[in-house]
Amino acid sequence: MKRLIVVGGDAAGMSAASQARKRVPADRLEIVAFERGNHGSYSACGIPYWIGGTVKTRDELIVRTPAEFRENQDIDLRVRHEVVSIDPHARTVSVKSDSGDFDLEFDHLVLATGAVPVSPPWADVDFGGVFGVQTLDDGDGLASWLTPEVRRAVVIGGGYIGVEMAEALINRGLDVTLLERGEQPMSTVDPDMGALVRDAMAGLGIDVRTGVTVTGLAGAAGRVTGVVTTAGEVPADVVVLGLGVRPNTLLARSAGLPVGEHGGLLTDLRMRVPGHEGVWAAGDCVETRHLITGRNVHLPLGTHANKQGRVAGINIGGGYATFPGAIGTAVTKVCDLEVARTGLREREATAAGFDFVTATVETTNRAGYFPGSAPMHVKLLAERRTGRLLGAQIVGRSEAAKRIDALAVALWSGMTVEEMTALDLGYAPPFAPVWDPVLIAARKAAEEVHGADQ
Amino acid sequence: MKRLIVVGGDAAGMSAASQARKRVPADRLEIVAFERGNHGSYSACGIPYWIGGTVKTRDELIVRTPAEFRENQDIDLRVRHEVVSIDPHARTVSVKSDSGDFDLEFDHLVLATGAVPVSPPWADVDFGGVFGVQTLDDGDGLASWLTPEVRRAVVIGGGYIGVEMAEALINRGLDVTLLERGEQPMSTVDPDMGALVRDAMAGLGIDVRTGVTVTGLAGAAGRVTGVVTTAGEVPADVVVLGLGVRPNTLLARSAGLPVGEHGGLLTDLRMRVPGHEGVWAAGDCVETRHLITGRNVHLPLGTHANKQGRVAGINIGGGYATFPGAIGTAVTKVCDLEVARTGLREREATAAGFDFVTATVETTNRAGYFPGSAPMHVKLLAERRTGRLLGAQIVGRSEAAKRIDALAVALWSGMTVEEMTALDLGYAPPFAPVWDPVLIAARKAAEEVHGADQ
Repeated sequence: MKRLIVVGGDAAGMSAASQARKRVPADRLEIVAFERGNHGSYSACGIPYWIGGTVKTRDELIVRTPAEFRENQDIDLRVRHEVVSIDPHARTVSVKSDSGDFDLEFDHLVLATGAVPVSPPWADVDFGGVFGVQTLDDGDGLASWLTPEVRRAVVIGGGYIGVEMAEALINRGLDVTLLERGEQPMSTVDPDMGALVRDAMAGLGIDVRTGVTVTGLAGAAGRVTGVVTTAGEVPADVVVLGLGVRPNTLLARSAGLPVGEHGGLLTDLRMRVPGHEGVWAAGDCVETRHLITGRNVHLPLGTHANKQGRVAGINIGGGYATFPGAIGTAVTKVCDLEVARTGLREREATAAGFDFVTATVETTNRAGYFPGSAPMHVKLLAERRTGRLLGAQIVGRSEAAKRIDALAVALWSGMTVEEMTALDLGYAPPFAPVWDPVLIAARKAAEEVHGADQ
Repeated sequence: MKRLIVVGGDAAGMSAASQARKRVPADRLEIVAFERGNHGSYSACGIPYWIGGTVKTRDELIVRTPAEFRENQDIDLRVRHEVVSIDPHARTVSVKSDSGDFDLEFDHLVLATGAVPVSPPWADVDFGGVFGVQTLDDGDGLASWLTPEVRRAVVIGGGYIGVEMAEALINRGLDVTLLERGEQPMSTVDPDMGALVRDAMAGLGIDVRTGVTVTGLAGAAGRVTGVVTTAGEVPADVVVLGLGVRPNTLLARSAGLPVGEHGGLLTDLRMRVPGHEGVWAAGDCVETRHLITGRNVHLPLGTHANKQGRVAGINIGGGYATFPGAIGTAVTKVCDLEVARTGLREREATAAGFDFVTATVETTNRAGYFPGSAPMHVKLLAERRTGRLLGAQIVGRSEAAKRIDALAVALWSGMTVEEMTALDLGYAPPFAPVWDPVLIAARKAAEEVHGADQ
């Protein structure tokens, strides 16, 4: 009998456990997963929608309970169990729990310790009302803080989580201010596209302040009272940190496992930690190869965590699978404004050493004469001379965001914008103009690359 | 001064004219377009939505009027002018019109004569109430026939046009029967997917009868009264022919121009008619190379017509562009059921000589816990051994159909289903489950190709 130990009971860890179990029965492989929080497998990405009331109850976010893992898959998921150290040579982990501390040996170890919110020194305060929203436990804390007397919310950081949380809180009836250091909110797209998001947020009544740097928090009587910034203090009854996350790899680093320039665990294509036989890693705690730049990035997203966990589990179970990398595809929405991206933004393309052209078009999601037709912006980045697609962004209302997938596949396949002008995409009046927005953008980008008269 | 003559004033022809004009000013190139019907550039694909009342007025379908072409682009579009013969050696066309007949010389000739509805011998009757819906004039005829006493409609043929017209007519309050010779309506997808469409049509109150062959029409007092079938006569006050269309190439064939096995004009990649310098063709009157089978097909769709016309016009104007072919992507909807396909159906794959596996999954369009989450079926065909994607079909409610585009790009790029399992597609709870439907289908198809335990 062999034993697989999984550290971290959410997407990556439990995907690995499930795939290993699918291939190896319980009489040949024991699977134990330790989760330091109160919940196992759940949708962390759904937390803003639960806080905002779109998803009615927290329990809808729970994918599978420990009891379900035990009964259906013979997987022993233990919550409120924290792995406090790993000895990769002795092949043991040390576990702390309410019911006692113990060591356990492993044949395979999956590190799926996730990420933790970036929390600057000024956020290290001894009063309440300051929350990250990385785990369901974070969400629980925030939800119970939101009593009727909590009126003024400040969200710090205008990335996905920040924007989604600002909308969630305004949907709950709070006054919401969003503070962003950069030029525009939704810093995951270029500022020209971010400006469209800012308009939508303002339309919801969110007070968006850009070019503002936070320097501290103010508090009284054990509660937060304001956010101190380079542009004065903003009163607050609750503060949400949306400053991004970093890989949670303290445990791994203590054990001498290799981490990269972004602080994430390094793995090979099969999700093995190099140099440590039987040790695997997956999810928000690892670095991922960006297929367009060829460099490592930290991309903490459920879709990668699930894929990486699945790949680790298949390999542990004796199969063969690889995770080749990612290209930075992401979608979100603010009210009815949909925002999507794939590949590189301008700043990223420049940093990677690319010389490129851009093309932005405004068109409609459906035939112009069809009811529900709405404006849609598509922006493409293409490499100078080769015309290879480097990145794409979409902002639009209704049925806009998932069109990024066609662009993501084109990018993944290394297509040029000239080749893309011929793509055979779906056309019918309820779904697209006869020239699909993607094709119009590709035509314009090809003209930028080759000249309009060629 | 040179002269470009365009035969046919809709999508392909006017795209060619516009692109040529964009590159060559009016003092160097005269552009004359002849259209035998009453209208120039319009959206034929919008006709069912106008008949059904979704699009309020017919004029919304008109893209540009002859006056607009003249004023904005110096293009002389003459409606009610029929080209009755072409002499490709003398480089002249003969034109018939109410204001007289004449011959005109050309330097460049674009044939964009479109398609005509397939009309079996039994449809050649001398009473009214039997309509194709290929042109705006056809739509005009049908719309004026639909007086309040016209109650019973029979649509013959269950392809796109048939299904769209059946819905349009039931939306107008008629009793509608759809007759289809095959196993299921929506014969453009496999019968297992077509069965889902049948359910949706039945839910609208459309009487769908399959396995029924039409043998004749019945009429009295100059009006249609019924459709005679192998399963008895079906009463009808109006009959719509949805039996598909064929290339309208009588003129071209009379002039000795080359046509292919499907009756469409043959062209090279730049849309030149081979062996006839200065003669070009584009749109529903040409045959197109299917990039998966390598064989010619007839794909009468506005999206191809516009692309081919654009390519012809760029080349006529001295630029360089090619139309490489198509892969059979198409989308439509029945009520709120969306239907999409790309590549080959099972029957087509078999006919092309492929050995293949299929994988069908039922999943949801959004995260299961997110409001508005709805079922979505994805079916993939992959070549045995290589695992190369050969075709895909989607049936779902809400935000389902345009997801075919990601599959179309994967197909276009020659991806295998195994490669597709790693694709970086957009994920957020309002837009997709954490495992996107496309990825779940790719995983299942890869298991079919390689075995579940590999």
